Amino acid sequence: MSDLAEPLARLIQEFRRLPGIGQKSAQRLAFHILRAKREDVERLSQAVLDVKDKLSLCVECNNIADAELCNYCRDESRDPKLICVVEEPPNILPVEMTRQFHGRYHVLHGAISPLRGIGPEQLRIKNLLTRLQRGPVEEVILATNPTVEGEATAVYLSRLLKPLGVRVTRIAMGIPVGSDLDFADEVTMTKSLENRREL
Amino acid sequence: MSDLAEPLARLIQEFRRLPGIGQKSAQRLAFHILRAKREDVERLSQAVLDVKDKLSLCVECNNIADAELCNYCRDESRDPKLICVVEEPPNILPVEMTRQFHGRYHVLHGAISPLRGIGPEQLRIKNLLTRLQRGPVEEVILATNPTVEGEATAVYLSRLLKPLGVRVTRIAMGIPVGSDLDFADEVTMTKSLENRREL
Repeated sequence: MSDLAEPLARLIQEFRRLPGIGQKSAQRLAFHILRAKREDVERLSQAVLDVKDKLSLCVECNNIADAELCNYCRDESRDPKLICVVEEPPNILPVEMTRQFHGRYHVLHGAISPLRGIGPEQLRIKNLLTRLQRGPVEEVILATNPTVEGEATAVYLSRLLKPLGVRVTRIAMGIPVGSDLDFADEVTMTKSLENRREL
Repeated sequence: MSDLAEPLARLIQEFRRLPGIGQKSAQRLAFHILRAKREDVERLSQAVLDVKDKLSLCVECNNIADAELCNYCRDESRDPKLICVVEEPPNILPVEMTRQFHGRYHVLHGAISPLRGIGPEQLRIKNLLTRLQRGPVEEVILATNPTVEGEATAVYLSRLLKPLGVRVTRIAMGIPVGSDLDFADEVTMTKSLENRREL
């Protein structure tokens, strides 16, 4: 391994630093790059830099944006009366994939975690309050993760927002569709029972 | 998805072109890059380009090299009497991982495949013959893949090289260590029986 040509060994090492990429994947990727067309490689190299250089946070919702407002906040067709609150920008993707949500988003950039010393003051909550005070928001859907931190954040936000006269909801936790009760852990099963609905 | 900021969507698209990277992995990688330090991202971007720009083929063995000779051919401590022939440069890695081989390599850059119109004249065999005629080579180990193409190539090379008075060997095919006979396909099991050894 140590006898690989230096640029190749270096690229394998750089790929290995990425999440979910082990030694074998890093090697496969590096040899792929080696064989790829110069123009394709240049495009990848540039795309990597551009993500770092051309993006900032949306002034409205803190999502990743290539302008002052992100694509969701710019989109006039999206319902401004409905805001879905998520922890991180990638959390928007699974919500979008449902094609069922046509409101706006708000990205906290974290969750309350006393263990890691993260309190509400480190989350981007201030401009959420501004949006509620200023706008026509009717419902805030709390889509923080179903973890201790996500739950704590949801509870905190619900106490903070309800007095402003807005409806505050939480996404449901339960057995995943297509799964089997046998595979459910006890906490999920408990949530699934608690969240049961009249048929 | 389509509402992601353009540089982010573009990077996800570029990552998806890489082998073994699906939509989810590409997203995770792109968001990782977004959060990474500028200097780390620059290093990755540069390493990708360098692999394309700073490497060529070793004049001796056709392996990837950052100089006229590759690291193995430059290494005086490696036995020049022993040459291991492989199809592609990445095939050297599993051989090196054994730490049992201390000879040199020869990379063919392909295998004979009538179906794909690849004949022996398209493989880099000429400088292997030069090495045999010039040097002190005693054994050539054929480590082409255990596929129809790799076998055809091994048979072709063995007929070509044996008349030159060199020992020609082929790596063994059989049941993988730690596996179970139940999982062996019939061709592998047949090879395993054919290659049996006296105990």
